[in-house]
Amino acid sequence: MVHIGFIKSPFKKLENMPIQSVGAQSTEGSVHIYPDFVQGLKDLDGFSHIYAIYEFHKSNNYNLIVKPFLDDTKRGLFSTRAPKRPNPIGLSIFNIVKVINETILVKGVDVLDGTPLLDIKPYVSKFDIIHNSKNGWLEKTMNKSDTIVSDKRFK
Amino acid sequence: MVHIGFIKSPFKKLENMPIQSVGAQSTEGSVHIYPDFVQGLKDLDGFSHIYAIYEFHKSNNYNLIVKPFLDDTKRGLFSTRAPKRPNPIGLSIFNIVKVINETILVKGVDVLDGTPLLDIKPYVSKFDIIHNSKNGWLEKTMNKSDTIVSDKRFK
Repeated sequence: MVHIGFIKSPFKKLENMPIQSVGAQSTEGSVHIYPDFVQGLKDLDGFSHIYAIYEFHKSNNYNLIVKPFLDDTKRGLFSTRAPKRPNPIGLSIFNIVKVINETILVKGVDVLDGTPLLDIKPYVSKFDIIHNSKNGWLEKTMNKSDTIVSDKRFK
Repeated sequence: MVHIGFIKSPFKKLENMPIQSVGAQSTEGSVHIYPDFVQGLKDLDGFSHIYAIYEFHKSNNYNLIVKPFLDDTKRGLFSTRAPKRPNPIGLSIFNIVKVINETILVKGVDVLDGTPLLDIKPYVSKFDIIHNSKNGWLEKTMNKSDTIVSDKRFK
């Protein structure tokens, strides 16, 4: 995998971080694209949101059964967004504030400072909004993601 | 990157495929997880939708400026969902029909048969629905994704 850039955020440590972008809507950060890839940012300024695909670069192993931040019950890893995964690939939705040359100012940052970036895709309402989805074990607890922050369990 | 499984679909060739999952809502396929990772599927059956993160395994180069399927204008790659990217990582939202042991029967399959799977994350309405997003150059054309199919341009 090539690093196409990196993400700057206020979070220097794995603890006390927002666990989802929705819990960090006002948190500002920036996405910095390396020179070889800047041309690909053309037209991105018309979009309000992007999917950022990045490396969980502090993640070095995983368990298939985990106790997620939002529950006290052990869950199958692929039914969670836990950061330690067979492929340490993270997915967040950031709100674009402004695109300035190689820099994208964003809100909703829920990643560690210096996180390596793998890809950007535009968030497209027609493709990405699923109406009436069923949210499994998260149905009861997903609203807590606004307030719950991370602890040391995935360190 | 580890392949945690693969995706079966009716699409054997890059041409005439749906270009987004929304254009393939009734297309059935299946996700097959390798034995080492099956335990991680626990609890997934409570969810109606998943993000599948996979390799565009037929993608072997890229351009930073592309003419996407949904437009006649050249666009910056990162403002598109075009398959040829610096990191050939694909993102689709599949509708779970049923989880049976190591197999997930799904609808909405818009990938090639045999596509290697990298990760599964649950789609969670609270995290993943963005209200009032602006969809840039796709605003006018995104609804065509229901009917337009791929051609040879990204072969």
